[in-house]
Amino acid sequence: MRIAVLGTGGVGTTLASALVATGHEVRMGSRTAGNEKAVAWVATTGAGASEGTFADAASWGELVVNATGGLVSVEALTAAGAENLAGKVVLDVSNPLDFSEGFPPTVVQPDGRSLGELLQATFPDAHVVKTLNTMGAEVMVAPRALPGSHSVFVAGESPDAKAVAGDLLRGFGWQSEEILDVGGIAAARGLELYLPLWLSLMGSLGARDFNISIVRA
Amino acid sequence: MRIAVLGTGGVGTTLASALVATGHEVRMGSRTAGNEKAVAWVATTGAGASEGTFADAASWGELVVNATGGLVSVEALTAAGAENLAGKVVLDVSNPLDFSEGFPPTVVQPDGRSLGELLQATFPDAHVVKTLNTMGAEVMVAPRALPGSHSVFVAGESPDAKAVAGDLLRGFGWQSEEILDVGGIAAARGLELYLPLWLSLMGSLGARDFNISIVRA
Repeated sequence: MRIAVLGTGGVGTTLASALVATGHEVRMGSRTAGNEKAVAWVATTGAGASEGTFADAASWGELVVNATGGLVSVEALTAAGAENLAGKVVLDVSNPLDFSEGFPPTVVQPDGRSLGELLQATFPDAHVVKTLNTMGAEVMVAPRALPGSHSVFVAGESPDAKAVAGDLLRGFGWQSEEILDVGGIAAARGLELYLPLWLSLMGSLGARDFNISIVRA
Repeated sequence: MRIAVLGTGGVGTTLASALVATGHEVRMGSRTAGNEKAVAWVATTGAGASEGTFADAASWGELVVNATGGLVSVEALTAAGAENLAGKVVLDVSNPLDFSEGFPPTVVQPDGRSLGELLQATFPDAHVVKTLNTMGAEVMVAPRALPGSHSVFVAGESPDAKAVAGDLLRGFGWQSEEILDVGGIAAARGLELYLPLWLSLMGSLGARDFNISIVRA
C-alpha cells in the first residue's frame, strides 16, 4: 500500500521505517519538501521511501498517518489538503500535549473534545482512526519485544477503517486479540487522556519500553 | 486500625466491608448521622462497623478514606474537619467526573490540577495518597478474582503514608510487586485522567471486572 506518514519526528520515522520493512511504500510528508530529517530518512531507508510536502505525501498516499505534533496537527492536515484526505483512512497516532508549563504536561482538549474528534470534524470525508498513541514508538512497531500479551486500542466511526488499521497493526506483529476496539472517535478522549499516566509510569519505571495489558475476570 | 470511610456509595460500602473483613474497625461517615445507607451497612456488617457524620468518623479514625463523589470531596472533607485529618493518612479513591453533559464524562481538573492535589493543598497537614481510583470497587478489594498479575497505583508526597496504603492494599490481596508508586501527588493527574479510558473499556468489554497490568520489556 502507498502510505503517507506526516511528521518527521521520532514517531514518524519509526513508523515509516516499520511500514517500509513490512512491505509498504512510504512517503514522508513535512512542511517543506527537502526537510533535512525526511531526506536523511529516505537516504537511510532506500527502496520504498520518498519524501515531500504534506500535500505531496497525502495526495500520493492511499492511507495517511498523522504523526505530527498534536498541537499542530490540524494545521498540518490542512496543509496536506482536505481533498487529499477525502475517502482515505487517516491513522491519528498523535497526542495533543502541552509541555509549556513543564512536566507533567496537560492534554489539550478544548471543550472536552479530543484531537481525534477535532480531526474527524475538520476533515469529515476522511476516516479517522485513533490508535497507537498510548505507547512509545518502539513498542508500536515491535510489540513482540515485550513479553506476553498487551493491548493496542482503535477508536473511530468507520468499522472498515478500523479493519484497515487492524491489518497494519498485525503487520507490526500485533495479535488480533490484542487489538481492542474502544468505540467511536469520541473514545479518543480517553486514549489521549491516558498520556499523563503513561508519562508517570515512564518516570517511575525509568523506561519507555512498556505497555498496558487488559486483565479480565 | 480504626478507619473512617467517608461516603456511602458503592465504593464506600465495598471498601468499608472489606476493611472490616480484614480486621479493621470502620466508621462510615456521611453528611448527617443516621444516613439510611450507612445504617443499613452497619446493620448488615455487625461487629466492627459504626456510622456517624463526616466529622464523627474522621475524628474517631486513625486513617481516613475519601470515597465521596469527587465533585463534592472538598466540601465533604471540610465538613469532616481539617483538625480531624491533620497528621493522618487520607486515602483518596475518588474521581472528579462530571456526567452533566452525558457520556463520556469530563474529568474536572481546574487549571490542570488533580483532585488529589487539591485535597493535599486544602488540607496540608493530612498525608493524601491517591490510590485505587483506577478500577471498579469489586476489583479494589478482591484483586485475586482476576487472573494473573495486574496493577494498582499510589501517588502522594509522603513515603510513610504510601507505605501505610500499601499495607492496606496487601490486606485486600494485592501483591507488593503489583503496587506501583507513580510519584508525588501531582501524579494523581494521570490517575484521574485515566478514567475516561476505563469507562470506554467498560463499554467495549461489557464488564467492570477488569484492570490493567503493566507489561515491561
